[in-house]
Amino acid sequence: MDGMTAAPVLERLRAALPAGTLLDDTGGHRHDEAEWAPHGTPAAVVRARTTADVLATVRACLDTGTPLVPRGAGTGLSGGANAVEGCVVLTTEAMTAIREVDPQERLAVVEPGVVNDVLRAACAEQGLWYPPDPASAPWSTIGGNVATNAGGVCCVKYGVTRDYVLGLEVVTGTGEVVRLGRRTAKGVAGYDLTGLVVGSEGTLGVITEVTVRLRPARPPEHTVAGYFSSAVDAGRAVAAVAQARLTPSALELVDRHCLAAVDQWKDMGLSVDAEVVLLARTDAPGVAGEQEADAVLACFERSGATWAARSTDQAEADALFEARRLAYPALERLGPVLTEDVCVPVAAVPEMLARIEAAATAHDTLIANIAHAGDGNLHPLLITPPGDTAARERARAAFERIIGDALALGGTVTGEHGVGLLKRGGLRAELSPAVLAMHRAVKAALDPRGILNPGKVFDVR
Amino acid sequence: MDGMTAAPVLERLRAALPAGTLLDDTGGHRHDEAEWAPHGTPAAVVRARTTADVLATVRACLDTGTPLVPRGAGTGLSGGANAVEGCVVLTTEAMTAIREVDPQERLAVVEPGVVNDVLRAACAEQGLWYPPDPASAPWSTIGGNVATNAGGVCCVKYGVTRDYVLGLEVVTGTGEVVRLGRRTAKGVAGYDLTGLVVGSEGTLGVITEVTVRLRPARPPEHTVAGYFSSAVDAGRAVAAVAQARLTPSALELVDRHCLAAVDQWKDMGLSVDAEVVLLARTDAPGVAGEQEADAVLACFERSGATWAARSTDQAEADALFEARRLAYPALERLGPVLTEDVCVPVAAVPEMLARIEAAATAHDTLIANIAHAGDGNLHPLLITPPGDTAARERARAAFERIIGDALALGGTVTGEHGVGLLKRGGLRAELSPAVLAMHRAVKAALDPRGILNPGKVFDVR
Repeated sequence: MDGMTAAPVLERLRAALPAGTLLDDTGGHRHDEAEWAPHGTPAAVVRARTTADVLATVRACLDTGTPLVPRGAGTGLSGGANAVEGCVVLTTEAMTAIREVDPQERLAVVEPGVVNDVLRAACAEQGLWYPPDPASAPWSTIGGNVATNAGGVCCVKYGVTRDYVLGLEVVTGTGEVVRLGRRTAKGVAGYDLTGLVVGSEGTLGVITEVTVRLRPARPPEHTVAGYFSSAVDAGRAVAAVAQARLTPSALELVDRHCLAAVDQWKDMGLSVDAEVVLLARTDAPGVAGEQEADAVLACFERSGATWAARSTDQAEADALFEARRLAYPALERLGPVLTEDVCVPVAAVPEMLARIEAAATAHDTLIANIAHAGDGNLHPLLITPPGDTAARERARAAFERIIGDALALGGTVTGEHGVGLLKRGGLRAELSPAVLAMHRAVKAALDPRGILNPGKVFDVR
Repeated sequence: MDGMTAAPVLERLRAALPAGTLLDDTGGHRHDEAEWAPHGTPAAVVRARTTADVLATVRACLDTGTPLVPRGAGTGLSGGANAVEGCVVLTTEAMTAIREVDPQERLAVVEPGVVNDVLRAACAEQGLWYPPDPASAPWSTIGGNVATNAGGVCCVKYGVTRDYVLGLEVVTGTGEVVRLGRRTAKGVAGYDLTGLVVGSEGTLGVITEVTVRLRPARPPEHTVAGYFSSAVDAGRAVAAVAQARLTPSALELVDRHCLAAVDQWKDMGLSVDAEVVLLARTDAPGVAGEQEADAVLACFERSGATWAARSTDQAEADALFEARRLAYPALERLGPVLTEDVCVPVAAVPEMLARIEAAATAHDTLIANIAHAGDGNLHPLLITPPGDTAARERARAAFERIIGDALALGGTVTGEHGVGLLKRGGLRAELSPAVLAMHRAVKAALDPRGILNPGKVFDVR
């Protein structure tokens, strides 16, 4: 970081930004949680505190033709926030103001660095609820959630981040601050540029403010757990829930590998004599919620559950869901984890689980499974012993095979994590050349200099 | 339609399309229901039966540089489907196949010409529900609903058309058939081009197939009616419902002008001694739904309702909502109607209603009001005596004033009808030049020849 040898962009940033905004140490901001994705070394890391900081950074990059990689907390699992060699990494994690929570309009206006759980707590104080609940909710930021269109456990009933974004302030690829969307409940004035930016993984603009839609706080949930001796039985239970026209507020699958890893770490006494555990919740108000839970239980039982029950103990119910949330870090302790995020039609869940098992066998790779089963969104977690290059190669082959299987079953390569770097090949396989050309045309239209997170999601020709 | 003098596009279409696809009489397809919007005379009207027909039509327009105006049933209220002089009008109303209703995946795949109510009936047969319910539901088509991102009565709880569109088949502005979106519950593979096309009013592509998300059929609704002696009181009741954290499944406002017009036409015995009537519905399951209805009733009563009650008579409740749906055609019988579609923050509803009244007085114009009050989406209906040019000028001035007032209150010029031709000025006032430039850039990227519904929504430079 010597001024004599600094890249032109660094000089521009030093001149334009307030003291303390340009970080001396770039080490902590080189990549996200996708350990397997490549990353370069940034020329600079900017920790923006204001929209003006973001604007100055974008303009410095524009003027010097420097790639800009925006990021939030860096909890992504696809490499979307990984540094491009010589880029400027711009983190909005220090923009943490909750500007407004409005009970009447049912919206909140927040800066992008607000942590998901912090927003949820602020809403809860006013009897309101921000539903999107990725497993990273205690650490990930709303800006990152919006950039990746994050999902979570409650999506099966309440939808994903995009469903809750009413409006955005964005610094564009042409170096302007724009307001997209609205504060009103409805609005069709022009194209849905808000929705276009949601999930665009930093390739169309840098998010500097988010207006989210809120719901009233919901009734307490009821929990149902079921043990199954095969993935096929569990898949049949998921199908039975849909066929019964039920909409649980959560319908999660955790396999024995995950439960064992969590137990080994946290000693929660979870290891069970089952191949697969299904966890469901219902939140209809009053008696209807209990009836709904009973109906889910009946679906589990008639689909071959070896054991199933409604949980009457809230602590026990919470522990089961906590175990699901801890599965990923627990498995990471065993070695580098390559995370899949395929999403298939619900009817194809049993077949997809069988194909994952086949991939594990064929490529001699340990694959654990957690899944938002009610959405058909599966997270096979491919685990390799640390330092074992051959195992990594085998895991990589299994990863590609699973992506191919998901597409063959009418699914998508990414249900909620985003494309980033890890799923670029999958995206090319999923989208037709004409649709990829539409992506490139939109990207070129809104980022004509190509500075915004270049090379993420798709190659820019 | 003489071959000797026909435009080149007509010759191309004759050569490319099956018999019966090119209509001889263009008279019925020159404009939508926005009587006040200008329209030209089309060179040809194509009534497509297949995607291939649409593709051939788009390619003929591309090759000859002819404007293409896509349309569904023509029930729009903004002039979005109005013919551009010398254009090809392409209607998809004959593409009426329901290809699939899948209870397990909770989706339906339909051609764009399927009428909204027909889809809803097909879903109901399988215990499923397609929520978007514009007042035009008995006549309007899913293709048009998607192109305008149509709203309706149930939006206040269940959202708008965009919330239910999973995937689209589209013929692009470069003459290709593409599939956008997905069939899975979730998916983040690339930009949300599906959502971008929804609400783009035919300017980004021609919709040839729609995959919609469905919900399970819902419990029976409970109806609450309240009479208010002023719009301000009614607005206070709407605010009270939000503050009580209630989410009714409908919260509609109808004023005495509308009720009188419906009564005069249908003799439904609706005229009441009230300035404004609020109609609410709740649909929580079981006892919770009744409790919710009682809570809404309490909000009405403590906000100054002169009379309020839960309807115990389903026929009576249905009649009240039918009257709301018939308000527009009933008022049209009195003279040409200029329809507003402003949407303001819910807290601003009383102030907006007061400003509408002030506009009526200032410009000596009869303005009736229907409103999706729970969404802040107001439809002031400006009525002029047939043939009275001076009255039309006054109404036009009142129209512009109301648009300005809505923007001043933090609202949008169009909540659900679309921009079309009537709200282009409003759009320019609502969006910043930078955001308008983004619109033009996206339009140029996806429709580089500028043939798709040119001049609608915004001027193409």
